[in-house]
Amino acid sequence: MTTCLSPELLSLYNLEESVVVAIDVLRATSTIASALYHGANAVIPVSTVEECIEKGQKPETITAGERNGITASGLQYGNSPLLYQDGLAKNKTLILTTTNGTALIHKSLQAKQILTGSFPNISTLCEYLKGQSTPIILACAGWKGQVNLEDTLFAGAVATRLDQHFDTQNDTTLLAQALYNQYQHDLPSLIRQSSHYKRLGRLGIYNDIQYCMSFDTAPVLPFLYEGQLVNKKF
Amino acid sequence: MTTCLSPELLSLYNLEESVVVAIDVLRATSTIASALYHGANAVIPVSTVEECIEKGQKPETITAGERNGITASGLQYGNSPLLYQDGLAKNKTLILTTTNGTALIHKSLQAKQILTGSFPNISTLCEYLKGQSTPIILACAGWKGQVNLEDTLFAGAVATRLDQHFDTQNDTTLLAQALYNQYQHDLPSLIRQSSHYKRLGRLGIYNDIQYCMSFDTAPVLPFLYEGQLVNKKF
Repeated sequence: MTTCLSPELLSLYNLEESVVVAIDVLRATSTIASALYHGANAVIPVSTVEECIEKGQKPETITAGERNGITASGLQYGNSPLLYQDGLAKNKTLILTTTNGTALIHKSLQAKQILTGSFPNISTLCEYLKGQSTPIILACAGWKGQVNLEDTLFAGAVATRLDQHFDTQNDTTLLAQALYNQYQHDLPSLIRQSSHYKRLGRLGIYNDIQYCMSFDTAPVLPFLYEGQLVNKKF
Repeated sequence: MTTCLSPELLSLYNLEESVVVAIDVLRATSTIASALYHGANAVIPVSTVEECIEKGQKPETITAGERNGITASGLQYGNSPLLYQDGLAKNKTLILTTTNGTALIHKSLQAKQILTGSFPNISTLCEYLKGQSTPIILACAGWKGQVNLEDTLFAGAVATRLDQHFDTQNDTTLLAQALYNQYQHDLPSLIRQSSHYKRLGRLGIYNDIQYCMSFDTAPVLPFLYEGQLVNKKF
C-alpha cells in the first residue's frame, strides 16, 4: 500500500497493476459517497463544465460541480455533500465536475480498479480493501497539484487502519500516518489550519466541512465501472 | 515560508521571487556542507557524469558523485560527506553530481537565491534565513521525483525553528512540521524506516547516515554564486 500525495506525481506509480483509491476529502469524494448513499444510481465524474452540461441533457440526471469552490456557471448545483441528504439525487445520475477530485479520477483511468474514499465511507472502504491482493495506491487530489493536509490525513487514516494487512513501510505512507497519528484525536484542529478550510471558510461552508470530517455517515463503496461511479456490493 | 515536497512540483511555486533552500539530506547537501566546511573553495553541482568528468579536467578540482547511491563510473569519489573531513578537498573545487540533489539545484535556477540545507549546517542556515524578507521555499530533493521522509523531516525542522519569524501556515509546511514534531526526539527511528536508509543500508553506508543526521557539524552557508556553491559570509 503506497500513497501518492499529488496527481502531478501519479506518473511515478504503476497504475496498471493497482487499485487506486481517489481521495478528495473536501469535497468531491465526500459528495460522491453522500450522493450514492442517499439513493443516486450513479455519479459520472467529468472533467469540464461543458461536458457536465452536455451529459446533463439526458433524462434523470442532475448536474453539479464547482470551480474554485463556487458553483460552476451553467450547472444546477455546487459541490456540497449535504445537498443529497433529502433525496435530491434519488434514482438519478449525478454528473459531477470539481476542481481536483474529478480530474484525479481521470488521471487514474489506467488503474486496474478505481474507488473513491472519504471519511463518510472510510470503514466500508477499508473493509473492502482488506480483501484485496492487488497493490493499493492511496491517491490524494490535493489542490491544483499542490499536496494538501486533508487528503494526506485521510490516506494516513486508511493506512493506519490497514497496516496489519498491508506493508505500509514506504516514505509517503509513513508521512501520511505521522500526520494522522499526531492529529487523530483532534482532526478539526488540523483541518482548521488547512488552506482548503480557509478557502471554504471564506465561502461560509462550515457545515460541509463538518460533514466531510464525519466518519461513516455514508457507508458505500464508490467504484468506477464503465465511466460511472456506482455503489459496489461485496 | 513554504515547502515543496518534490522537484516535480517546483513549477507550482514562484521561484523568481524566492530564496530556495535545496534539501537532499542523504547525502548531497550534507556532502556540500562537509566539503565547504573542510576547506573546499567551492562545490560545482553538475547534472551529468560527463559534465563532471569534463569540468574535472581543470587543475585543483576533484570529481565526485553517485548514481543510485554508488560511485558513478569515471569519477574519483562517491557521495560520502565523510571523505572531506581530512582535507581531501581543501583549497580545491569539488565537481559533484548526484541522483537527486544536483538535479534539484538545476531545477531551481530561476530562484532569486539558492542555498543548500542539511542537518550539519542547520543552525547556520536558520540564522541566515531569519534575516531574510524574501519568501522562502524549502525545496526537497526526494528520490527520483518521489517525496521522501528525510528531506521532509529536515524541512519540518527548519520550519519549526523559524515559525516565530515566518508564516508557516501552509499545508506542506504544516505536514513537514507534523513529521518533525512526532520524531524530533528520536530522529534515527524515523530514518531507519525510510526507503533511502534501506537503500544506503544495503550499500553499508551507515557512517554516512550518522553524519548526515548530526546537527551543526559543518556550520557553513552554501550559497550558489555564478554556478558555484560557496560558503557565504554574513
